[in-house]
Amino acid sequence: MIKIAENTIKRLIVYKKELNRLKAEGKKFIYSHVLAALSGSQPHLVRRDLMAVGYSGSPAHGYSVKELESSISDFLCSSRQVKVILIGIGNLGRAIIDYCHKQNPKIAISSAFDIDPNKINKEYHGVYCFHIDTARNYVIENEIKVAIITVPDSEAQTIATALSDAGIRGILNFTPGRLRVPENVYVENADMMLYLEKVIYFVQNV
Amino acid sequence: MIKIAENTIKRLIVYKKELNRLKAEGKKFIYSHVLAALSGSQPHLVRRDLMAVGYSGSPAHGYSVKELESSISDFLCSSRQVKVILIGIGNLGRAIIDYCHKQNPKIAISSAFDIDPNKINKEYHGVYCFHIDTARNYVIENEIKVAIITVPDSEAQTIATALSDAGIRGILNFTPGRLRVPENVYVENADMMLYLEKVIYFVQNV
Repeated sequence: MIKIAENTIKRLIVYKKELNRLKAEGKKFIYSHVLAALSGSQPHLVRRDLMAVGYSGSPAHGYSVKELESSISDFLCSSRQVKVILIGIGNLGRAIIDYCHKQNPKIAISSAFDIDPNKINKEYHGVYCFHIDTARNYVIENEIKVAIITVPDSEAQTIATALSDAGIRGILNFTPGRLRVPENVYVENADMMLYLEKVIYFVQNV
Repeated sequence: MIKIAENTIKRLIVYKKELNRLKAEGKKFIYSHVLAALSGSQPHLVRRDLMAVGYSGSPAHGYSVKELESSISDFLCSSRQVKVILIGIGNLGRAIIDYCHKQNPKIAISSAFDIDPNKINKEYHGVYCFHIDTARNYVIENEIKVAIITVPDSEAQTIATALSDAGIRGILNFTPGRLRVPENVYVENADMMLYLEKVIYFVQNV
């Protein structure tokens, strides 16, 4: 398999999101330079990135929005549905369950885990919350590979280690600390402040 | 003023975050190539980006973590404190208030706004929630320039238009729709799914 650069993946995800919006707005075709402008990318990068998913050339009437969205979607996530677990049912955890549910039907948060007795054995937007101590077995039994961590900072490392031991291969980390995990575990640090700081910079300086 | 590329700003924010972590871990000095590795950047980009904030050369014992963090922080946000408002006190809104409060003392969410009578006139992590109809006047009177929008998708455009009219110049948009705003308003679309899709791609393909 050809190795695809991380930045290409990131751009493809943005294209997919823009194509989804265009589909919702009833748009049928799009030119690479328009998709580039909408995505904050460059036309030559769009064309190169689309070659990675099996599209080449730039059709005279533009790409079919529907076909392109579906090709990128299949390329990014080949499975019919990916099961993901969420650790930590705070405000952010609940917001993520709600958001995920609406945004991408291919991604299913199959269970949530928490340590708070008031949260355990309850459902949040259809996702059942179990005791954190059962997460390890759940991951093994259900062959879960991806986890979202939204626990307090002090708990994150212990949980990341336990999950990695159990077979988790990708972690979306919403805690501010740096996680130490084995080399075969991919960690993405989600940072909401980064977005806000960027807005503030542009408001103050541009 | 020299125009700084959007990607440079984004990288500077990541360096700042990494430097903050290093400071918390008690580290005093750091080499540009180490900062590059931690930030997912390149050593030559780190050195070029640091020139933008007034650092040049690569000291033999590395950069001072504390000085560098404070220089980048001042560069990104020159004011003593930036006041930001938040529209929409759902789970995500509350998570953002909590997160922001802990992560960056220079950014203060000064007020929140919602339409739900059960949320109005209550405090969330010290942030008071007013009726959405008062947001316009609040922005004008307090010269607020930055707003975070975490309302349902169907409300986002009306709110963005009203805020832009009132003088808002930067919006952090957590709703999936595209906002139409005047040219002098900077919109950053925050997307939590983008992070998750990236993790899933790397788990499935690398």
